[in-house]
Amino acid sequence: MNFLHALSELVGKTNVLTGKAAAPYLVDWRERYHGQALAVVRPGTTDEVASVIRACAAAEVPVVPQGGNTGLCGGATPDDSGRALVLSLQRLNRVRYIDQHNNTMTVEAGCVLQTIQETAGRVDRLFPLSLTAEGSCTIGGNLATNAGGTQVLRYGSMRELTLGLEVVTADGAIWDGLRGLRKDNTGYALRDLFIGSEGTLGIITAATLKLHALPLARATAFLALESIEAAMTTFAHARHRFDAALTGFELIDATCMALVAEYFPRHTLPFDRESAKLPWFVLIELSDNESETHAQQRLETVLGQAIESGFIKDAVIASSIAQSKALWQLRESVPLAEKVAGKAVKHDISVPLSRMASFVRDTRQILEQAFPGVCPLVFGHLGDGNLHYNVTTGTRWDQDQLLERQHEISTLVHDQVHAIGGSISAEHGIGQLKRTTLTHYKSVTELALMRSLKRALDPRGIMNPGKLLID
Amino acid sequence: MNFLHALSELVGKTNVLTGKAAAPYLVDWRERYHGQALAVVRPGTTDEVASVIRACAAAEVPVVPQGGNTGLCGGATPDDSGRALVLSLQRLNRVRYIDQHNNTMTVEAGCVLQTIQETAGRVDRLFPLSLTAEGSCTIGGNLATNAGGTQVLRYGSMRELTLGLEVVTADGAIWDGLRGLRKDNTGYALRDLFIGSEGTLGIITAATLKLHALPLARATAFLALESIEAAMTTFAHARHRFDAALTGFELIDATCMALVAEYFPRHTLPFDRESAKLPWFVLIELSDNESETHAQQRLETVLGQAIESGFIKDAVIASSIAQSKALWQLRESVPLAEKVAGKAVKHDISVPLSRMASFVRDTRQILEQAFPGVCPLVFGHLGDGNLHYNVTTGTRWDQDQLLERQHEISTLVHDQVHAIGGSISAEHGIGQLKRTTLTHYKSVTELALMRSLKRALDPRGIMNPGKLLID
Repeated sequence: MNFLHALSELVGKTNVLTGKAAAPYLVDWRERYHGQALAVVRPGTTDEVASVIRACAAAEVPVVPQGGNTGLCGGATPDDSGRALVLSLQRLNRVRYIDQHNNTMTVEAGCVLQTIQETAGRVDRLFPLSLTAEGSCTIGGNLATNAGGTQVLRYGSMRELTLGLEVVTADGAIWDGLRGLRKDNTGYALRDLFIGSEGTLGIITAATLKLHALPLARATAFLALESIEAAMTTFAHARHRFDAALTGFELIDATCMALVAEYFPRHTLPFDRESAKLPWFVLIELSDNESETHAQQRLETVLGQAIESGFIKDAVIASSIAQSKALWQLRESVPLAEKVAGKAVKHDISVPLSRMASFVRDTRQILEQAFPGVCPLVFGHLGDGNLHYNVTTGTRWDQDQLLERQHEISTLVHDQVHAIGGSISAEHGIGQLKRTTLTHYKSVTELALMRSLKRALDPRGIMNPGKLLID
Repeated sequence: MNFLHALSELVGKTNVLTGKAAAPYLVDWRERYHGQALAVVRPGTTDEVASVIRACAAAEVPVVPQGGNTGLCGGATPDDSGRALVLSLQRLNRVRYIDQHNNTMTVEAGCVLQTIQETAGRVDRLFPLSLTAEGSCTIGGNLATNAGGTQVLRYGSMRELTLGLEVVTADGAIWDGLRGLRKDNTGYALRDLFIGSEGTLGIITAATLKLHALPLARATAFLALESIEAAMTTFAHARHRFDAALTGFELIDATCMALVAEYFPRHTLPFDRESAKLPWFVLIELSDNESETHAQQRLETVLGQAIESGFIKDAVIASSIAQSKALWQLRESVPLAEKVAGKAVKHDISVPLSRMASFVRDTRQILEQAFPGVCPLVFGHLGDGNLHYNVTTGTRWDQDQLLERQHEISTLVHDQVHAIGGSISAEHGIGQLKRTTLTHYKSVTELALMRSLKRALDPRGIMNPGKLLID
């Protein structure tokens, strides 16, 4: 084929993959989405990306950008028409520049998140983005989906961690917006617009990221609570007392903890039998720039008050780094245990903090009425108002029954979320998974604005078509 | 006129101003921009704004939105064609809703910033945006220009302080994006795009703002330093030790302090004769959630180390709220003293922190060579890399000479900024003042992207034409 031959000229023959070599790029890692493609192309420089896009624009070939292929919504998998080109950014993986005095690092899209974290650590800085896939996801994918994770409470999502971008536009021009400035009011927020646009407006090829001071100390505790209301009160109390020093506030319900106990018996709850029976648990983390002792004492004082006031029933403060790691492992084992346990109807939702407690109570009740026997697993980033609200078979259903009624269950959960001003995608994005759902919940005006922007920046409609936004 | 009659039907006769009543809306507060208008219209609700915009769209009448009319770049003043309608948002000034548990407040565009600060304070919360015009500027104007000020270091600019928006689009539809969510990945960043777009893409009518915990204590100090390099080292030291607790780091040069001493002799430098002769001063502020004593001791310790290491030559820590206020007044008197002293060629620039010291040294030298006798006044938000770099007559020039060569002087300063990846507008925006300069420094690709967005959201070109972006 002429087009593939032209691509080979641009990026080298070994970087245009077809057949078996292309197969791993045509399915997402959870194997929920399968697609076909003309080829997979792996450019090694921004100029090569630009020339590939120009070739695609001329031939009207759709482009599906892909990073570490760890997305949860099928945003990086092509459709099954076989017309699209998968553009893998994995070879674009240099750390271009670390500016210690400016607390910034400029990296290419294909850099693996963990590499970036480690590179920052080597110059005594923190790059705070942290999520389960960090060993294989790329920063380009994190940017495309405005990734969140466990440190958003203090440091924000990907958009807040980014100062500048380099982008190849839909007509193959290169926008050099790699600025390392904290303040810049010279025009429209192009950076913020490209971040989170899931490759539908242009290809992010590099970014200038904010680095933070490494905290001198961290104190971690696991809390047992009687109600979701108590968890919210504890959060408000901790937030008020710690302000920006509160760097983690993760919620886990008893059902999740039971799964962890069943499938990862090494990770046991650090409570006595009575406290271990309570319905809610919280992992709280405090970061401190004074000393280990200061961090520990501060957390003890504030948790002590919360116990006295009755918000918390029990608390275990880690007294070593090993203990702190063990507590975090309890939290991190939740999605793993859930995966082993079987299929679930998953949701990645956020609601205003003021509506969180009633949302959790009401939705459980309505779910159990509509689908007797199903069982929600509730965990997530409570401080951000973000829950992974996953519905499982419970005792009476089998997995096929659950999947048959998946759509009904999700509609019920999303209706509840929407009614209180929440979001049906807090941190995972839309991709293919929620593109229809999105049109259901967004207003006509918002969809029209989004479509205007899409047409303006991608008039040929070749940038990751069918993702995020459908006509 | 039919059109004005139609407007009267929409908003009431008393809210359509012409002649003398309209005059105050046709000139900016510094009286640098004068314009003409068909009329000034003052809608009282979002629906009224929408119906006014629909009327303007139908008649192709340009609209110039205006808040408190305190902008510094002429962004809210119409041109002199008399064809445009000034749309004042001042009557749209209700605090719609305070959600204490969500730490958010929903306000209309015409709310005065100080009212918002005070309303937040009454529920024991902080709305951090703080700037000189806070007694009369409106939040709508703050949003339109992505306002900055003295608290950006810790809390970010207006964009970072905003969770949701309500916007009337260029075709008069109402986009209800008033979400109070910390995480929401359901589509393009419309909020971030409208913020900072200076009324050229739509009219912001309301916003949901983030509130923060009120710090329990603040400690403030004034520092005297021997060089700009020492100021940068002190900043890095303080940032590393205090992290998010560092809430202010303001730079003032000796020339600025001399003007304050001349015009506001009540505000004296708290140093002995020798320290008062040093070339650089810094106001540093630490916020603390433990206690006054803790804040004070922490600041003392860290400043003590900086003195021992020789970064700082002298430091005065405020020991009371009154003393702290007096130190802040020294900083706040700088722009006032400068105004009394006479005309200056002003710049609102930002540069990467790693380039700050060489920028300050090099630019002074090049300026003095090119324009012997002129004198830069340097002050600003050093921690954000943002300086107000204002060039005054010094000893040998008179004011007319200075203004005659204004363009040359600005070009020299902006060329220096641009060469090191800086911004020609850190926090004031573009408006009319810098619209030509902007096209000079932005790349063709970036201008093309911005123009595509403008055409997409305002195809008739009626939203604040001639501001920010020119063809």
